[in-house]
Amino acid sequence: MPAAIEFYFDFSSPYGYLASRKIEALAQAHGRKVNWRPILLGVAFKATGMAPLPQLPLKGPYSMRDFLRSARFHGIAYRQPENFPVSTIAAARAFYWLQEKDAVQAVALAKALYDAYFREGVDISKPQNVIQIAAALGVNAEALAAALNDPAVKEKTRHEVDAAIAKGVFGSPYLVVDGEPFWGVDRFDQIERWLAKGPF
Amino acid sequence: MPAAIEFYFDFSSPYGYLASRKIEALAQAHGRKVNWRPILLGVAFKATGMAPLPQLPLKGPYSMRDFLRSARFHGIAYRQPENFPVSTIAAARAFYWLQEKDAVQAVALAKALYDAYFREGVDISKPQNVIQIAAALGVNAEALAAALNDPAVKEKTRHEVDAAIAKGVFGSPYLVVDGEPFWGVDRFDQIERWLAKGPF
Repeated sequence: MPAAIEFYFDFSSPYGYLASRKIEALAQAHGRKVNWRPILLGVAFKATGMAPLPQLPLKGPYSMRDFLRSARFHGIAYRQPENFPVSTIAAARAFYWLQEKDAVQAVALAKALYDAYFREGVDISKPQNVIQIAAALGVNAEALAAALNDPAVKEKTRHEVDAAIAKGVFGSPYLVVDGEPFWGVDRFDQIERWLAKGPF
Repeated sequence: MPAAIEFYFDFSSPYGYLASRKIEALAQAHGRKVNWRPILLGVAFKATGMAPLPQLPLKGPYSMRDFLRSARFHGIAYRQPENFPVSTIAAARAFYWLQEKDAVQAVALAKALYDAYFREGVDISKPQNVIQIAAALGVNAEALAAALNDPAVKEKTRHEVDAAIAKGVFGSPYLVVDGEPFWGVDRFDQIERWLAKGPF
């Protein structure tokens, strides 16, 4: 059984969203599973000294244009959220809490959160919105509301994010295949070659 | 006659080098000319607050690995220069000086400078190395040596770099097709679609 693809992403990352719409078909075509691993780019930025794209002169305006064009290029529905980027700590905590109960449903939640933010413009930084999105999938709203304030859930999320950064994760999407790191949805061509023909 | 592709690059940029090996075949296949426009990333970084990749924690080590892997992916010979990145002001001045005399030979010089740096490990920050590389193409070494200290050549180069930044250029390679900006050799797939089928 070949190793799963480690898929690191932030719920507020446009390129992470695009990757999330492509990763499963790619993995499946090559007999790989995917480990979904939400991170917090804000924490990673503190480690690297990087800043959110929209804040950067020249690169910011280019990026806003590239988000939309890249979505069209990949044939993926995309609407630029008005609040952008946002904190995704509630979304990440909800994911890691749910994952311990039901890993399959946690992936469904990840997709629903991305859709809510990048298709419907729902502000997923708000815990009540995260709860509503999860509840629509059948998750117990009260249990999730409690979990979002549970120190153990906070600690688990912090641990996952710190572990990712310790492994070198600095952006979103960041994928690891057989120990090889690939940053960006624009490395899917290289990942595909790696999966099909092995290391190069 | 469709518009030429504006190709901005820094002579010390690995992804700019990779782009330089691919841009002409791509342009030719779609009946476009290419305007080669060396810039100075150091000046652009001052405008954006960005820093050279190797200096960035986490992103730096990843990038060094990605340079080599991307070159292998594209089937392009690449040797990581020991001195990296380097100042490319002498290289840019040589290019713009030569371009006014012979635009075709200036492109040949650009390719020779890239080859010298990314294949042979020649330190192209040194004016005498730039002169030697140009002389091998038949350029008058004494005239070039004088040009590299000519205030008019310095001013022309400064003007070209400032004009690029004023147009939004912040990285290398940065390409503009019909007014549409594309950053990175990993946008060649989108450029190809644009050239083949028009705006999207």
